[in-house]
Amino acid sequence: MIQTEDEQKSDPGSNNIVALQEVVTFLEKGAFADADATLDELDSSTRLLVLSRLPAHLRRLLIESVDLEDAAEYLQDIPEVQALRLLEGIEPAKAADILEELPKDEQADFVGELSEQLQASILSEMPAEDAAEVRELIDYDDEEAGGIMVVRYVAVDESETVSGVINQLQQNAGEYSDFEVQYVYVVGSDPQTKGKLNGVLRLRDLLLSPGKTRIADLMIRNPLSVSVHAPLKDLHNFFDEYAFVGVPVVDSGSKLVGVLRRADVEEAMGEQYAEDYLKSQGIVNEELRTMPLLLRSRRRLAWLTINIVLNMIAASVIAFYQDTLTQVIAIAVFLPIISDMSGCCGNQAVAVSMRELSLGLVKSNELMRVWFKEIAVGLINGFALGLLIALVAMVWKGNPWLGIVVGLAMMINSVIAVSLGGTLPLVMRLLKLDPALASGPILTTVTDMCGFFLVLSCATLVLDKLV
Amino acid sequence: MIQTEDEQKSDPGSNNIVALQEVVTFLEKGAFADADATLDELDSSTRLLVLSRLPAHLRRLLIESVDLEDAAEYLQDIPEVQALRLLEGIEPAKAADILEELPKDEQADFVGELSEQLQASILSEMPAEDAAEVRELIDYDDEEAGGIMVVRYVAVDESETVSGVINQLQQNAGEYSDFEVQYVYVVGSDPQTKGKLNGVLRLRDLLLSPGKTRIADLMIRNPLSVSVHAPLKDLHNFFDEYAFVGVPVVDSGSKLVGVLRRADVEEAMGEQYAEDYLKSQGIVNEELRTMPLLLRSRRRLAWLTINIVLNMIAASVIAFYQDTLTQVIAIAVFLPIISDMSGCCGNQAVAVSMRELSLGLVKSNELMRVWFKEIAVGLINGFALGLLIALVAMVWKGNPWLGIVVGLAMMINSVIAVSLGGTLPLVMRLLKLDPALASGPILTTVTDMCGFFLVLSCATLVLDKLV
Repeated sequence: MIQTEDEQKSDPGSNNIVALQEVVTFLEKGAFADADATLDELDSSTRLLVLSRLPAHLRRLLIESVDLEDAAEYLQDIPEVQALRLLEGIEPAKAADILEELPKDEQADFVGELSEQLQASILSEMPAEDAAEVRELIDYDDEEAGGIMVVRYVAVDESETVSGVINQLQQNAGEYSDFEVQYVYVVGSDPQTKGKLNGVLRLRDLLLSPGKTRIADLMIRNPLSVSVHAPLKDLHNFFDEYAFVGVPVVDSGSKLVGVLRRADVEEAMGEQYAEDYLKSQGIVNEELRTMPLLLRSRRRLAWLTINIVLNMIAASVIAFYQDTLTQVIAIAVFLPIISDMSGCCGNQAVAVSMRELSLGLVKSNELMRVWFKEIAVGLINGFALGLLIALVAMVWKGNPWLGIVVGLAMMINSVIAVSLGGTLPLVMRLLKLDPALASGPILTTVTDMCGFFLVLSCATLVLDKLV
Repeated sequence: MIQTEDEQKSDPGSNNIVALQEVVTFLEKGAFADADATLDELDSSTRLLVLSRLPAHLRRLLIESVDLEDAAEYLQDIPEVQALRLLEGIEPAKAADILEELPKDEQADFVGELSEQLQASILSEMPAEDAAEVRELIDYDDEEAGGIMVVRYVAVDESETVSGVINQLQQNAGEYSDFEVQYVYVVGSDPQTKGKLNGVLRLRDLLLSPGKTRIADLMIRNPLSVSVHAPLKDLHNFFDEYAFVGVPVVDSGSKLVGVLRRADVEEAMGEQYAEDYLKSQGIVNEELRTMPLLLRSRRRLAWLTINIVLNMIAASVIAFYQDTLTQVIAIAVFLPIISDMSGCCGNQAVAVSMRELSLGLVKSNELMRVWFKEIAVGLINGFALGLLIALVAMVWKGNPWLGIVVGLAMMINSVIAVSLGGTLPLVMRLLKLDPALASGPILTTVTDMCGFFLVLSCATLVLDKLV
């Protein structure tokens, strides 16, 4: 996904951002401290604009020269694609140092997107233990608990007391950033249960109990947890059911390995649905206009060329009916309309199916149910659209047969389009294919072919009435 | 938005969900407790399926018969559109009772979507003070801090001591659900500062300090806060900049009115982008297949009829060139291809602009910058697509002029499509129109017209070479 060409050196339309010019000037003459100070003074939205529009080589200079903490922060601020290209551009040792400022799960998110070779070089620059942890996190799928969880949490031994835990919190106050400590997780202490999740302790309970209370007596036993391999949809349902802000994640041996936060699951769900739909429309979600021209072109072209080939296959149906078309040239006006409208009808159905699938409101084996539901809508809407287009055709040419041909074709094709659009995402899911990527192109190609075939073959049948 | 027709009585394709049949049977014979018990035993995803597929009148019976707490929970579980129709179907007094089980901000989310008349009836059934609070929340826009914030938080007087606050927490332990108490907000106590946000207290600090410590000495002074009218984009930037899990929200008089949580802002951002894009494709995001047929039909048709009219306007260009077309019938094959491909090119550019706008990576007055960036991509991709289509045309008909005509039209139209697609969302934003709703239809209509005009007028110019 990530290309290594350099970004354009200048961004001519950005002249109205004064700060960008300043930072560029400072960086070009090596005044890194001044550049950093200028950035520090900006409000966050302007800083984002400036950072994201710096020429890539200057962004690299900047991140190499500021202190590690600032560098890590900039890395998080800028769009992910830019961050990844930065990491590819700097020395692996430096990249490792900057990444080490971030929590392990975020390290894994970044490193996991790099080439395997670069992953290995960066990880080899980290302390072995850290590298092993990051490597483990990289292996989880993005759409399972392990890929979404955070690994910063407070775990204590069940043999502890309240005052012992408070001491521990106090000593590590710096490390535990305030927003992570909402629950304290209690793990087993004897050899058999070591590391296993035994309970959850609410900060409030800790706050309101005498210091000598044993944690084992205070904790909530048998707490709910999710498996590290639980898929995103199940996690979403979990948080729907329980008003928790987070839930512990355990591996197959019931050992505590991370914490899953509601916010992260909700974000992942929202992103998944939006991205799936955009993907089905050939839209590369992560494109930015600061990317190099050829990269943007190539990414968009990848989908456009597939699409134009499919379009040509569909349009080849028209070529078979050239004789009919020459005699009833008015039909040529209706071909693009039928093609476009069928696509719209079908895409509406695709979107509803994808949403119902992602919300868990439909099971992928309920093909017949979805089909029945779509046929009904297709008949009504097809009738309405068909009638409209038939009337226009009749009024325009004064020939009722022309109206019947295009109206009937529009109607039948609407039913085909919604039937296909509604069921394709379910079929894709059953076949373990990505519902998003394949549904759109298959749908429009098939509905175009059917639409062209319907209108032209009907016209051929009643050709003597049309000419 | 919300219609009052009844939903279909049965959902024939759902027979494979045994629990649904059970619950329906219980409800039909009035065995409400049994229905409730059956639902209680289900896992959350099956319960969601059952609840969302119950015939509307039975769902109403169910919610009226179970206790208020369960009713409120079911209301939150089911898709929002179904919840709203439920609220419309039951007595306002009952609706008010059920809603009162929810936090004020969620009450406002539901009530705000109902008709003004129903809003008034339900609010009049609530205690006057609660109703006033809910009414105030309804008035905030969905995309500003007031519309996204929660109103459950712990606020204490700055004259309190640590032990006083702990007492207060202890007494209200039931009310403060555990996940809300992450910070304690400190407000002024003397007449001039009453209710004004003066500081923030971390639970950790409360936990680790002697009981007599004055809150005023312990709190973080001058805490960051956001205005109740701050727009979503600024809120997103705020959380990008600060690693907070929540931030206090203040009104124009610096009074504390709510708390904004990171998760809610992230969810709102994700939803906004996805919904904007779907809207531009005529997709009503909240459609469910359990909705009544006519409602689903009508919603989809609303957009389809606009679209078919626009399509006809665009296709009318073809009608002006019937003579050319009759003589060079091969061009009819290419018209749908050029129309579809230009739409794709343009929509890719629309998506990039909408994303950059929503992430704050472009300002709406940077029209020229976006245009330059798009022209470059358009030229390259247009050249590639034009060349491809030209070669196909030449090989098919053995006439290089046909290739030149369709290839050139494709290329020029790609540039037009990306220029329009990239800049339209910015222009809409400048004109204070919704970039999503208008960009798609305007784009495809204009690019279709240009595409048809280009290919047919070029063909007319070199007609003698084509026939």
